[in-house]
Amino acid sequence: MPALSLPGLVEDTLREFFATRAELVDSVGGGYREAVATLQSFVLRGGKRVRPSFAWTGWLGAGGDPAGPDSQAVLRACSALELVQAGALVHDDIIDASTTRRGFPTVHVEFAARHRGAGWHGAPEQFGEAAAILLGDLALVWADDMVRESGLSAEQLARVTPVWSAMRTEVLGGQYLDIVGEVASDETVEAATRVNRYKTAAYTIERPLHIGAAIAGADDELIAAYRRFGTDIGLAFQLRDDLLGVFGDPAVTGKPSGDDLRAGKRTVLLALALESADATDPAAGRALRDAIGADLTEDEVERIRGLLVDLGAVDLVEQRITALTDSAFEALDSSAATDEGKERLRASAYAATRRTA
Amino acid sequence: MPALSLPGLVEDTLREFFATRAELVDSVGGGYREAVATLQSFVLRGGKRVRPSFAWTGWLGAGGDPAGPDSQAVLRACSALELVQAGALVHDDIIDASTTRRGFPTVHVEFAARHRGAGWHGAPEQFGEAAAILLGDLALVWADDMVRESGLSAEQLARVTPVWSAMRTEVLGGQYLDIVGEVASDETVEAATRVNRYKTAAYTIERPLHIGAAIAGADDELIAAYRRFGTDIGLAFQLRDDLLGVFGDPAVTGKPSGDDLRAGKRTVLLALALESADATDPAAGRALRDAIGADLTEDEVERIRGLLVDLGAVDLVEQRITALTDSAFEALDSSAATDEGKERLRASAYAATRRTA
Repeated sequence: MPALSLPGLVEDTLREFFATRAELVDSVGGGYREAVATLQSFVLRGGKRVRPSFAWTGWLGAGGDPAGPDSQAVLRACSALELVQAGALVHDDIIDASTTRRGFPTVHVEFAARHRGAGWHGAPEQFGEAAAILLGDLALVWADDMVRESGLSAEQLARVTPVWSAMRTEVLGGQYLDIVGEVASDETVEAATRVNRYKTAAYTIERPLHIGAAIAGADDELIAAYRRFGTDIGLAFQLRDDLLGVFGDPAVTGKPSGDDLRAGKRTVLLALALESADATDPAAGRALRDAIGADLTEDEVERIRGLLVDLGAVDLVEQRITALTDSAFEALDSSAATDEGKERLRASAYAATRRTA
Repeated sequence: MPALSLPGLVEDTLREFFATRAELVDSVGGGYREAVATLQSFVLRGGKRVRPSFAWTGWLGAGGDPAGPDSQAVLRACSALELVQAGALVHDDIIDASTTRRGFPTVHVEFAARHRGAGWHGAPEQFGEAAAILLGDLALVWADDMVRESGLSAEQLARVTPVWSAMRTEVLGGQYLDIVGEVASDETVEAATRVNRYKTAAYTIERPLHIGAAIAGADDELIAAYRRFGTDIGLAFQLRDDLLGVFGDPAVTGKPSGDDLRAGKRTVLLALALESADATDPAAGRALRDAIGADLTEDEVERIRGLLVDLGAVDLVEQRITALTDSAFEALDSSAATDEGKERLRASAYAATRRTA
């Protein structure tokens, strides 16, 4: 099972899982099959398979053998993370009222269009949301089915499920804190970090690695090292993302420049800038607060960029990224992970924290 | 474990489960604990515990011993059905834009009020929906955790989980077909029956009984009898509900008279009436179609009641209820269920199909 094509293998595995549901879905009848097909398309065109990759690498690094008899089962369990992610994204897109995702209409927009096209009664948007709520639910419950039916042994499942369970409770908590932070205009570094910790770091890196380690039966020490590595790199990844959300090149990131500012996103970058402004430059603080969530012109975005630099917030974020990355590598280097595991995790960490898109 | 207090035992079990999540929820911090407390209140004040009762009775009737060593584990697995139901209701209330449930504000309305009370930014309704989507998700994923952590043996879990999995896929399908049927104005008896089958019968009676039987290790014959009984009684239950939705006494049902008509609900009752009207009385058909989903006065509701009777639809529905109940009892009587199980299921069936509220 060559590691280079892991995203492809994950996709095949997900396709196989959907095939196992076809009979039951068809037995329900009506338009259920078509609705599920929309969910399947959404899942199959999905991105970089970051979470399955970390889980798989966590397993490898804990001594998992890709040529061993259980590698297919492990791959299935790792791939199930993409169904959790699909459910989270479908629901998140409703919450954020997003209209596109990966260049396609979001699921609720797609079903609203279907309603419109069919000339059905009622508000197309309301139907779209309703359908997307149900399909997001389906992805979440199928994620569980996929782990349970992965073929992992009872011992492996017993080790994995507490982690699986914690991950889902944490990410839903992180999402909830995120929406509260936004409406409550929470300006603290602490609140933004807490969202980063649970919505991103734990969910994207720490817990997937932990899941891989748990499948492999890793000892407490390696698990602790993975978790520190995952939390630190996850936080650093989000800080890099925050910088790119304001300073990134739209041609590279694919998102309009300054989009995070217009969306009113409560980032650590912004929290640090506000802290500094309140201590040294109240006028800059007012300018920043006025800009958050406003419909900024490109010139205004450029002005905010200048403020973020001048207030030292960009430097502080870069320093945090460096410190977190150092801490992560220290944990990794001194761990008992295999050389191959270390090498891959190091490469992933560089990719996550030094990227430009 | 006395059967009379089963709802109370289910509630205790659910309370204990929430307690097991407290540490993790607190570790996420922020306002997550308060949000989860709202979900807990919602779950704990919930109704008649119909699904756990059927699952428990299914287990008893298949020889499960309430004085045996695994009865606590069985109770926990049965109680988990209430968390699926909580997730389904929280999301359903968003989908239907319902404002109250069991005399309390629905979860999305409750969170909108919290937003308003705190003077937060943005639209309170949007925040309320977002919070309710996330808490419904949490209930769904915790339902899985609760089954997995119930203490059932690996053999019991292996028998239960395919049924658990089918049930959730079916109910989400039934809900999807329901919203499509409504916007597409599907007038067929077949479409209404399919929704009843998967949204109500399978989810409320058939699969809970099946889950109980699977835990007990029942043979295929008893499972088949349970499933026929559950499907038939579930369909009959829904037909009774449809009649009550139009003819029920508001003082008894607690719902305004004719509410189902105003809500535009696509019932078998209505489908049968339209079939009959199209064959014999086109004017009555037009009057019915105009009334569906309209803001009817009490006099208009009374007129529709008259039409439903005159067109023979009420008689047809009563005949169906009788036929389904007969079929269900035949399956039950000729099954190998214990005498106590049979007696209880018969009592439940009477309660479900001959009720006035």
